[in-house]
Amino acid sequence: MNDAAAPVDGPLPWPKLDSRPGPDLMVCKARYDEVENPRTGRTMTRVVLETRDWVNVVALTRAREIVLVRQFRFGTGRVTTEIPGGVIDTGEDSLAAAQRELREETGHTASEWIYLGSVEANPAFHDNRCHHWLALGAVRTHELEPDPGEDLRVEVVPFEQALARVESGEIAHSLVICALARVANLSRDGLVLPSPGADEQGAR
Amino acid sequence: MNDAAAPVDGPLPWPKLDSRPGPDLMVCKARYDEVENPRTGRTMTRVVLETRDWVNVVALTRAREIVLVRQFRFGTGRVTTEIPGGVIDTGEDSLAAAQRELREETGHTASEWIYLGSVEANPAFHDNRCHHWLALGAVRTHELEPDPGEDLRVEVVPFEQALARVESGEIAHSLVICALARVANLSRDGLVLPSPGADEQGAR
Repeated sequence: MNDAAAPVDGPLPWPKLDSRPGPDLMVCKARYDEVENPRTGRTMTRVVLETRDWVNVVALTRAREIVLVRQFRFGTGRVTTEIPGGVIDTGEDSLAAAQRELREETGHTASEWIYLGSVEANPAFHDNRCHHWLALGAVRTHELEPDPGEDLRVEVVPFEQALARVESGEIAHSLVICALARVANLSRDGLVLPSPGADEQGAR
Repeated sequence: MNDAAAPVDGPLPWPKLDSRPGPDLMVCKARYDEVENPRTGRTMTRVVLETRDWVNVVALTRAREIVLVRQFRFGTGRVTTEIPGGVIDTGEDSLAAAQRELREETGHTASEWIYLGSVEANPAFHDNRCHHWLALGAVRTHELEPDPGEDLRVEVVPFEQALARVESGEIAHSLVICALARVANLSRDGLVLPSPGADEQGAR
């Protein structure tokens, strides 16, 4: 099987017949596309939330501590524990954004930056990606520079404690978990997947 | 340190002074909240995208193959490879939704269901969570029942191939990666985090 090529039998891309702007939602901009389902030939309206790419940072000190940020989140209406991150500004690349967000949100700078790849925020309706960076040798060098929409608290804890907080549910932001999954094993203890033929051998 | 209690010095929740409905975005409903930053005392408008909870399913056959779905996604405008999932209907619990989505999108049913916990979709502006389920003993028993907005292709591949597709970037949906991270180690080969004191020992 050739993964690089789409299978001959689809699924096919949906032709876009029309597109019109929708309301500005501050964190994103709505757009309404008129698309045709290649399976049925019928047209339908689908919303796209046009969103700038995001970045987040797994920042570690030389003592293998991770730099966390606690803040009130407007979507869930609760205080969350996350890694630093934010929106990539116009003309900024993802590394510059990662370095800026780490400094502004936590006052830390770092000596070594390693790109961890990116994920789609939600391909069903967002058009953007979140880029993950690993920052090594993080040190507190600056004052925090929270923007008017932020009220932040910084926590620097052993890296394993962050993983324990994923397990406990305290760290629950999907994009934070994606970043942590690039550098740590987040699978649950005791949740062992069956091996091929395990049933036949009576192992489960 | 007591993780259960919020630190005395905050961050504090932001008082909601007013709230008004915004446009219906099909996949979610916008709401505008007037909130007060406890750090500055200033009020500002913030958008919340009210969204039903979602569910997705890591479904494995007895041969340790995973059931994947390929479909065109309107947000990114490309064909993605994902695990089955969708929106939890009114009056439905997350298990029933997971079982329904697995059946409708892939024609599979499963003999054993294990809850893997949930994540916040994006606490910055979504109010919902995505619930992850592990389905064991998955078997093709039904025809697909795609809704008018879907054109699906099912792939059943060895579980390890799904992990390789995360590594290659073919599987890139953040919520799919969160679900897979509950049952597999997605951290990258060769990306070894520094040990405490490694610098001092000249190990890096």
